[in-house]
Amino acid sequence: MSDELEAYIRDSRVARLATVSRDGQPLVVPICYAYDGERLYSVIDRKPKRVPPEKLRRVRHIQENPKVSLVIDEYDEDWTKLRYVIIQAEAEVLFEGEEQERAIALLREKYSQYQNMDLTGSPVIRIMPQRIINWCAERRGF
Amino acid sequence: MSDELEAYIRDSRVARLATVSRDGQPLVVPICYAYDGERLYSVIDRKPKRVPPEKLRRVRHIQENPKVSLVIDEYDEDWTKLRYVIIQAEAEVLFEGEEQERAIALLREKYSQYQNMDLTGSPVIRIMPQRIINWCAERRGF
Repeated sequence: MSDELEAYIRDSRVARLATVSRDGQPLVVPICYAYDGERLYSVIDRKPKRVPPEKLRRVRHIQENPKVSLVIDEYDEDWTKLRYVIIQAEAEVLFEGEEQERAIALLREKYSQYQNMDLTGSPVIRIMPQRIINWCAERRGF
Repeated sequence: MSDELEAYIRDSRVARLATVSRDGQPLVVPICYAYDGERLYSVIDRKPKRVPPEKLRRVRHIQENPKVSLVIDEYDEDWTKLRYVIIQAEAEVLFEGEEQERAIALLREKYSQYQNMDLTGSPVIRIMPQRIINWCAERRGF
């Protein structure tokens, strides 16, 4: 992977994550995430949710089917500037442990918004890339 | 549906669409779309693609499994301003006909970028909402 692509994944602020239920119904949600150069992590934070974290649809989906897809892109009215990076991945939900704690530390480092948020015991989605699709409208340098 | 929500769906410029393969692998891609108050339409346009439109993964996925999910949102560093609208839907690919032509006309009306693009015979994805999830961080007025 080029340094440029790695920086794009690391520094982008939002991604959209698709998960799928056992019976093939997808769900796509915007997520904040951190990237350690190998895996991506997203935390089920305390932004208002209607249900407890372990019942959240995206968590149930990953437990039913670990295959996920994530897209990182930014829309621009100048369509020659469009690009996106799609990450086909396997995901797992971490409810506790050293990796879950490290993921939360990474997320706090990237997002100052997390610094004053209580994330103790918050489940973390670990996303392990299997395939990366790197598309841009003008193929400028990628 | 409130007028505000309908306007949000109609006027937003980009959505992310998740489709799923027969074996449960999702794919999420950014799309431009038009909304006629009932259905959403997206065209497989001539932005560079590696394969002919009928072989595009999202087209194959919809033919294998019509269930899709679409999210409309805009990221903001002020997380109290975050909102998203998720549309759980059934999709179909229209290769020709009156509805396909009407969809292209709607898309040209919304996006000036399409006005000089040859879209004759371009497949259109028709997205029929089954359920709409309207989330916002501060539930201001929805």
